Amino acid sequence: MRILVTAGPTREYIDDVRYISNASSGRMGYAIVQAILHAGHEAILVSGPVSMTPPVGCEYHAVESTEQMMQTCQALFPTCDGVIAAAAVCDYQPKSRVSGKISKTGTAITLEMIETDDVLAALGKMKDGHWILGFALEAQNERENALQKLRRKNCNWIVLNRPEAIAAENNTVELLDNTGQTVAHWTGLKTKIAEDLVAWLEVNSGQIK
Amino acid sequence: MRILVTAGPTREYIDDVRYISNASSGRMGYAIVQAILHAGHEAILVSGPVSMTPPVGCEYHAVESTEQMMQTCQALFPTCDGVIAAAAVCDYQPKSRVSGKISKTGTAITLEMIETDDVLAALGKMKDGHWILGFALEAQNERENALQKLRRKNCNWIVLNRPEAIAAENNTVELLDNTGQTVAHWTGLKTKIAEDLVAWLEVNSGQIK
Repeated sequence: MRILVTAGPTREYIDDVRYISNASSGRMGYAIVQAILHAGHEAILVSGPVSMTPPVGCEYHAVESTEQMMQTCQALFPTCDGVIAAAAVCDYQPKSRVSGKISKTGTAITLEMIETDDVLAALGKMKDGHWILGFALEAQNERENALQKLRRKNCNWIVLNRPEAIAAENNTVELLDNTGQTVAHWTGLKTKIAEDLVAWLEVNSGQIK
Repeated sequence: MRILVTAGPTREYIDDVRYISNASSGRMGYAIVQAILHAGHEAILVSGPVSMTPPVGCEYHAVESTEQMMQTCQALFPTCDGVIAAAAVCDYQPKSRVSGKISKTGTAITLEMIETDDVLAALGKMKDGHWILGFALEAQNERENALQKLRRKNCNWIVLNRPEAIAAENNTVELLDNTGQTVAHWTGLKTKIAEDLVAWLEVNSGQIK
């Protein structure tokens, strides 16, 4: 298989210095890339800024903004069998970016934030026989939100995890299919979950073709 | 000498996942700590989240928010001869932090941002014979803004650098004193600038006592 993997956070700049982001370490996505390579498949990694080194043997594309991640993925997705979208993209971006650095004036400022491009939904629209595995990081109504996300974005499966996952070495996840059923449940080191996930895809991803 | 050093970015959370921050790598501050130790002095490092490992031999305090950085520095500053404030603190924070994760609804949201605690100004208020060296990252009216910052925050000296410094290995800086004079000018690797800065302080910091 040839699998596209997104990983890490994205950044949306307020001015030339400050941005909105999250603490995603990229650990889950990089572990998945490692597991894909270890299982003898091809991995294409599209990653936001993290401190990890891309696994040796993957095709690596560095991005910073959500828009860059989307454009890069749209270009690569048609060449892959499927995508595992483990990145924690910014869902919001400032409506406009200020040039230079906003100076402190002693008063509050108001920041209007619009939604960013939706990378997963964009890939969902160009699905065409490829499979799509999304990640949902949910803090409330977890299963319901994850399932809505799966459907809205045209995913085959979605991995549900919670904010505790961010930047951690361990994770506890459920894999949901598009009927809302939990088809797998893994807990432990992200490296181990990555191996289990890739092994699961080797068995099950062919069925959607 | 016993020197307090701040380094790295701080983070101000919008909700349980998203925050405002900047791309500071901590490289300048960590290089300064290394140079202090190498010159035979004591270094106390108060650092926001970075991917670097604290230099062996320093006293290390990890913080995340600007408020944590301020409180930690206020507790440590009286035990030190001076402070080198190389951290790139968030100047703004959301007025309130949302519990959980803000869900996308398809519409824009408005974020009110207030100024964070001012770490350097807080230390300036408790100066009392200690010396204070600040950093100013300025994108426009650089020298004027840096000098205003020095005076407003009761610093002895301020290092002026520009947004290109962020996360870079190299830097170009000017050291200004409280008369507005450029007393040093360094360019090159941050590790080299750190050594020059510490050597400069060894000669000049005693004069303010």
